[in-house]
Parts: sequence; C-alpha cells; structure tokens
Amino acid sequence: MSKKMILDLDTGVDDALAIAYALASPEVELIGITGTYGNVLMDQGTRNSLAITDILGHPEVPVFRGVDHSSTSEPGSFEVLEISKFIHGENGIGDVEIPDSPRVVEQQDAVDFIIEAAHTYGEDLIYVPTGPDTNIAAALKKDPQIAHLIGSIVIMGGALTVPGNVNAWTEANISQDPEAADYLFRSGANVTMVGLDVTLQTLLTYADTAKWRALGTKAAKFYADMTDFYIKAYETTSPHLGGCGLHDPLAVAVAVDPSLVTLLDINMKVDVDGPTRGRTIGDEQRITDRTKTMKVAVAVDVDRFVGELMDRIGALVAKAN
Amino acid sequence: MSKKMILDLDTGVDDALAIAYALASPEVELIGITGTYGNVLMDQGTRNSLAITDILGHPEVPVFRGVDHSSTSEPGSFEVLEISKFIHGENGIGDVEIPDSPRVVEQQDAVDFIIEAAHTYGEDLIYVPTGPDTNIAAALKKDPQIAHLIGSIVIMGGALTVPGNVNAWTEANISQDPEAADYLFRSGANVTMVGLDVTLQTLLTYADTAKWRALGTKAAKFYADMTDFYIKAYETTSPHLGGCGLHDPLAVAVAVDPSLVTLLDINMKVDVDGPTRGRTIGDEQRITDRTKTMKVAVAVDVDRFVGELMDRIGALVAKAN
Repeated sequence: MSKKMILDLDTGVDDALAIAYALASPEVELIGITGTYGNVLMDQGTRNSLAITDILGHPEVPVFRGVDHSSTSEPGSFEVLEISKFIHGENGIGDVEIPDSPRVVEQQDAVDFIIEAAHTYGEDLIYVPTGPDTNIAAALKKDPQIAHLIGSIVIMGGALTVPGNVNAWTEANISQDPEAADYLFRSGANVTMVGLDVTLQTLLTYADTAKWRALGTKAAKFYADMTDFYIKAYETTSPHLGGCGLHDPLAVAVAVDPSLVTLLDINMKVDVDGPTRGRTIGDEQRITDRTKTMKVAVAVDVDRFVGELMDRIGALVAKAN
Repeated sequence: MSKKMILDLDTGVDDALAIAYALASPEVELIGITGTYGNVLMDQGTRNSLAITDILGHPEVPVFRGVDHSSTSEPGSFEVLEISKFIHGENGIGDVEIPDSPRVVEQQDAVDFIIEAAHTYGEDLIYVPTGPDTNIAAALKKDPQIAHLIGSIVIMGGALTVPGNVNAWTEANISQDPEAADYLFRSGANVTMVGLDVTLQTLLTYADTAKWRALGTKAAKFYADMTDFYIKAYETTSPHLGGCGLHDPLAVAVAVDPSLVTLLDINMKVDVDGPTRGRTIGDEQRITDRTKTMKVAVAVDVDRFVGELMDRIGALVAKAN
C-alpha cells in the first residue's frame, strides 16, 4: 500500500507548488486537501485548491473546509496581511487567472476528515500542514489518540537556527497561531519541522520557470507565470537570496523522502508568552529527556531537491492540459 | 607533534574542570592559560588558574593576563554578577580554599601570546575560550591573518536550538561581549560553538563527585568539594536538570575529540542590535552560501562524554597530591 498524504494548505503560490509535487510523486497518494488561512482567506484557498487540482488533471482529489481563524481568535476575524498579498497576489496564485472548478468542497469538515483518515490509514498516513497548525491542533484536541496513530506529520513552519521572517524570531505560519503549533509540538506525535532553516536555502529562478513554460501546456504556463510573480516579490523582500524560497514543496518532498534533509532529534516548544512569542525553540525543560519526540530539518541537499522538483513538476505539467 | 591547546578562562568551577580535562588528555599539550573575566574578575581567574595547575601537579603551565573588560566598555568597569557568585562562589571555585601558587602570571599579555602561538603552531594550535570571546577578538583585530593560521577555535558559549540562560535568547558568555563574539563568528576562522544546546544535556551529580572524593588526594577532595558547591547552586537555578551542566569541560572534550558531538555546518552571527541582543543565530544573509565557516554542536553522546570526564579527571586527581 502506498503512503496516503493529506495536504493542509492556505493555497498561495508555494502551496500550489506543493500540490504539484505531491501529485507528481508516485511514492504517495494525495487523498485530500484541507483548507486553512494565511496566505489567503480559507475559502479563497479551497477555491484555489479545487481549480489547481483540475488544471493538473486530478479532479479526484477532495478538498475540505477547515478552521478559518486561529485557535485563540473569533470565527471570521482573520484578515490577509498586505505582505501576503504582495508575495502571493490578491488571489493567492500570483494574480494569474485560472477557471473555477465545477466541483465544490466536501460536506465533511477538515478536522473530522483528518481524524477519520488517522483511524483508517494509521501508520500509512502522512499529514503535511504548510500554513498555521490550527486544523491539526483542533483534530488532536478532539481525538487525542490520533497523535499516536498518524504515521508522520511534516510541517512547513518555524525557524530554529535562523531568524524568523515576520520578525527576528518568528516565522509566518507559526505566527498565525503559536498556541496551535505549541500544542502540536508537545503532543508526542511524530512531527518533522521543515522551517526557514532549510526552505530559504532552496531557491527557484526565472531560468527554472522558463523551462516549465517551454513545455507549452496550460498547466505549465500557469505554474511558470504564477511562480514568476512570486520570484518578483522575493526580489523586493529578500534580494540577497537570488530567487524564491521553496517552502511548501520542500515540506512535501521531505515527507516523500526524508533523506533530502539532515534531521535533528529534539524536543521542541513554541514560545506563546513573553517577548519572543511565536519562536520555535528547543524546550529547556525537556533537554535531558533521552526520548526526543520531534525532528527538525537543519540542512538540505539543495541540488538534489531542486532537481527533483524541476523534474517531477515538469513531468506533471507537461502531461496535463 | 601533539596538538597544542590554549585555554582562555574566567576560572570558575567548570573552568577548573576544563583545566583538569585538558591536563588529563594525552591528545593535547596545554601550553598556556589566558585570563578573561566573567565568572570572576580577570585577576581572580588567573590566581585560580595558577593555584589549580599547581594542585594538579602541572606548574609548567604558564598563565597570562588578558583583557579585563568587554570590547565596548572601559578598563576596570567589569563587575561580577550576583548570580555568578551564587553559582561559582565568591572566589570562583566554590569557596573552597586552596593555597596561592608561588608562581606569578607571565610578563607577556594574553593577546600577544595568542598571536605568537598562532604563528608558531598554526594548524596544530587549538584555542578554547570558555568565557567571553574578548581576548580572541582582540587578537584577530591586532593580527587578522591568525584567523587562517589557528587550527581550530572551540568556544563554550551561545545557544542555537535552546533558549539562553541570561534571558530567553542570550547565553552568559556571549552576553558579556556580543560584539567580540560576532567578530569571531564572522572572521572566517575555523570556529566550533559548544553551547547550551549540548552542555545542559551533560550533567554531573553528587554520586559522581563522591567517586573522586574517595580517591583520597588533596586534588581529588578539592575537585569534589568545589563541584558539589556548583551542583548545589544548580539545584536552585535549574532544578529540572538533576545535576550541574558541564559547560567548559565539554568544550575541551570536543576540542580533543569532535566525534563526541554532532556538528552542524552553518554561517553564524551574534545579534548586537535590537531586542535579541546577544543571541547566537544563523546569518540569514549568508544562508545560501555553500561555504559554511562555523560548526555548532547540536547533539552529544552524553554517556561517552561523562564517562571520559569521570575517567580522565579521576585518573589525574588520583595521581596528584
């Protein structure tokens, strides 16, 4: 039985790359996409996920509405930050227009879908949140035993050995809901953190997207145009990098093949109080525990990952419409 | 030719353990101790280093006066913190009385001794600062070419994957002189950081010191009594640990045998401005540089290190007076 993957997305540009990477990976079957908020409103994200799976020729992937706000705020209170619009565009996918899907979101909500999948697939389930960890924290609170059922949870988020990107100590996904991330980190679940430590080392450039565009399909043109918008934003926000960070697809790639990164075994926490609120850091209270419940990616085989990403996504968009 | 080691110490309790570990290690020859400030005033530290090398039967080790204040403050301005007195005692060595050495400090100062040793021994020189990095930064500023002469610099200081011990982001040695540490980290020298990430995982208990005391020599009793004072302080400051952190001796042990720890290759900086002043963290401006100039210890073989420490120091104090 191949591994079953659920992506939990606030579907912006790199989330769209994550969908393509997952669908292009024969090692896993994408059994669903759950919606969260962050780069875009939750409902915009599920709209994008439906449209993107269609354009990639995978209308069999169900999309679920998730919680649309942080675990400590009111429903409907979330607003997209201006910086998110600058990086991902007003529509989240680089302001590139693609048709709405004829499909709609599922009746079942994200939290119940996660719990059901955990019981159904157990060790074979890989859950990959690339936005705030609100949905998985809610699922763990509703059914704590899933912490020990789900095979692995690979998050994009946090920064352990480098500064944050919201401020000097906080990464954007974690900043949306520090309490949810802290709950996940302390849950005892098999969690791997793929944070800025590694995602900012893996870059895509216009030269790379030009190769996709040359494939000539609608899907190829969409991925190239959308990613170019994102690279252009990075020229302003992070000119020292020389490309765009491949945050969310790297989390998927690590979920598919952990050997792409070097993993540090460590007991992690998220600061929820004090001046460093939102920081992901080792828990000094558990530093002498010989059992380490989490893994943090601290180094990455850049060339192999970018090669895999170019090849896999290239092959997928070449054979799509 | 065996490796030559210089220890740079603010000689408190764990610095005294570092001296014993170095003298007990046949892999290295301790060619000098340079004095810095921190746990104690610089002059108290050199007094302690002379007395300790005498009690350990090694009066051949020269001791050098170093800079007695941070690189951004006035001479004579440094005052020992109350917390340092609580942890190390008024005299720095657990308020245990040992005779003054009949020897005195060298005429040459620490900075010139470091520069001379770098030119004399080059690749065979290991420099181990376990207090503020003031002396080595001053030496690098006076003679920048030594950055590429010294074989390795292994510092005790900093915290990359865990919180600090001065506040949530700053470790004590770095906090004394963030500018000096930042200068060292950016110098291009071969620097290994042994910080709280690993030193707080390696603990000594009363059961361990009792084994030394049972050896019956004056040196054994001194090391047992002094370390007990330190363990007792840890019962108040860090009750969750269940022992005392072996900060400085671990830096020496890693300098002797790097295989005791897992090392992360990374380009580091120290925050000198802003709210996180004194934090040791990866430099986001150099995150995509394929050349990583520093190594940070992120995991440690606890049992092997504590075993080596007990055996080596035990053998040394057993044969001393």
